[in-house]
Amino acid sequence: EGIHFDLSYTPLIHLGYRCVIAAISDIYAMNGRPEQILISLALSSKITVEFMEEVYQGVMVACKNYGLDLIGGDTTSSRSGLVINVTAIGKAAKDKIVYRSGAKVNDLLVVTGDLGGSYMGLQILEREKRVFLEHPEAQPKLAEYDYILKRHLRPEARKDIIPLLDDLKILPTSMMDISDGLSSECLHIARQSDVGIVVYEEKIPLDPQTYKVGRSLGIDGTTAALNGGEDYELLFTVPQAEHSKLENHPDFTIIGYVQDKSDGNIMISKGGNTYPLKAQGWKHF
Amino acid sequence: EGIHFDLSYTPLIHLGYRCVIAAISDIYAMNGRPEQILISLALSSKITVEFMEEVYQGVMVACKNYGLDLIGGDTTSSRSGLVINVTAIGKAAKDKIVYRSGAKVNDLLVVTGDLGGSYMGLQILEREKRVFLEHPEAQPKLAEYDYILKRHLRPEARKDIIPLLDDLKILPTSMMDISDGLSSECLHIARQSDVGIVVYEEKIPLDPQTYKVGRSLGIDGTTAALNGGEDYELLFTVPQAEHSKLENHPDFTIIGYVQDKSDGNIMISKGGNTYPLKAQGWKHF
Repeated sequence: EGIHFDLSYTPLIHLGYRCVIAAISDIYAMNGRPEQILISLALSSKITVEFMEEVYQGVMVACKNYGLDLIGGDTTSSRSGLVINVTAIGKAAKDKIVYRSGAKVNDLLVVTGDLGGSYMGLQILEREKRVFLEHPEAQPKLAEYDYILKRHLRPEARKDIIPLLDDLKILPTSMMDISDGLSSECLHIARQSDVGIVVYEEKIPLDPQTYKVGRSLGIDGTTAALNGGEDYELLFTVPQAEHSKLENHPDFTIIGYVQDKSDGNIMISKGGNTYPLKAQGWKHF
Repeated sequence: EGIHFDLSYTPLIHLGYRCVIAAISDIYAMNGRPEQILISLALSSKITVEFMEEVYQGVMVACKNYGLDLIGGDTTSSRSGLVINVTAIGKAAKDKIVYRSGAKVNDLLVVTGDLGGSYMGLQILEREKRVFLEHPEAQPKLAEYDYILKRHLRPEARKDIIPLLDDLKILPTSMMDISDGLSSECLHIARQSDVGIVVYEEKIPLDPQTYKVGRSLGIDGTTAALNGGEDYELLFTVPQAEHSKLENHPDFTIIGYVQDKSDGNIMISKGGNTYPLKAQGWKHF
């Protein structure tokens, strides 16, 4: 609480859902399938039974949607604030587990879905919170932001991608999920694979709503994609030979490639300039 | 922090150790063997890298002592206070898993080791903290309390009991570990097994140091055993037929028996009076 979520605008049922998604997303990102979860809670005295029942409703819906068994956990009290910890257990075929460390020079860099939406949804929620604090009688205007709000409040993990890669006979050389922003994840793969990463700004997939809201708020969509997070899309590298399978596939976008470590981690802007990729912290809620 | 531990008198290396013990103790209590652990941390800004390294040293020593692999976890920030969550994964033979729900009328009630030491150690630490706050120049006098301090600050899980029961060809009908106090655990077994529990006060095993310190502090040793906690001993029930195997065994004490649910959960005092067993909360640190 106060780090990954703000209870003032996070519906409790979504909070439970989102905590499960964040945990299982890491297992999909290893080309595995989550099977069980354990939940531990530290509760402050202000937390009621009804409150926790709502959180658990969200957890149970996530378990249903993703075929998970809730097999245990722990509960304790907390001096201040709510803490939720989810442990996910899953399985992967031994010869198909994908790590962050296998990217090779000349591999293609690929991302699923679109990026930056969760961050942009958060900006809207924070703006509405400020408006509400100043004008408690105001009605929130959220209808036109449905996609990005859902991206933030109730994200999904890309469980569909794992069988899809299998059908396409693609085994990524490295993979991870985008929970801290594209820049940060690229740098993780680069460091652990001992390579450099090139990202083309113009290739980064943004939803039209993300782009539009970004313009109205004065936030660059690229910045949201690079430094936002919690999109829970998958980022992976594959050999060049897989290009034709991915090129026009609606679920995938090729956004760059892997280069020699000595050439660094860079983004090539729409204008053709080169910028270093940097991981920038951001507030998660 | 502030619930299960007080950083002002918990050495960090012991804190890491103790968190692992608390988690794996539950697996031994199901007649299983823990194999892997995952640790999640929420850290406030006052927590330094050196601080966490010390905590992890304790974790690694526990992993070594108990044959565990540390296979994952998560780290996040916390608005206030340190939160540590340990998930333990283990295995048990399918036909030898012991639950809390299998106790039968006339079964013997058995406990390992001695009780109340952890609670008494905590009282000494709290007293020394008060002394220190009033007289910062005073040297703590802790040498004579070595056993109970160790029971509190660096408890062990009874991994030795699992193969021992196996050697003795004893399969408990129910079992759990004593983390919240003997009373509370008896009531858990009673409720989940749909039975009543009888405890003889005079049979409750106390270490001489627990008894002696209790006298000097004006705390009854029985109270410490019943309502203290974090002794991480095992409490279990077995059929009467196992009496001879347990009767004079140094690791076990028969402290009571299982009766019909309608006869309730009671303690028979040294003076022969009957008292209802009650679970009383206590501060864990």
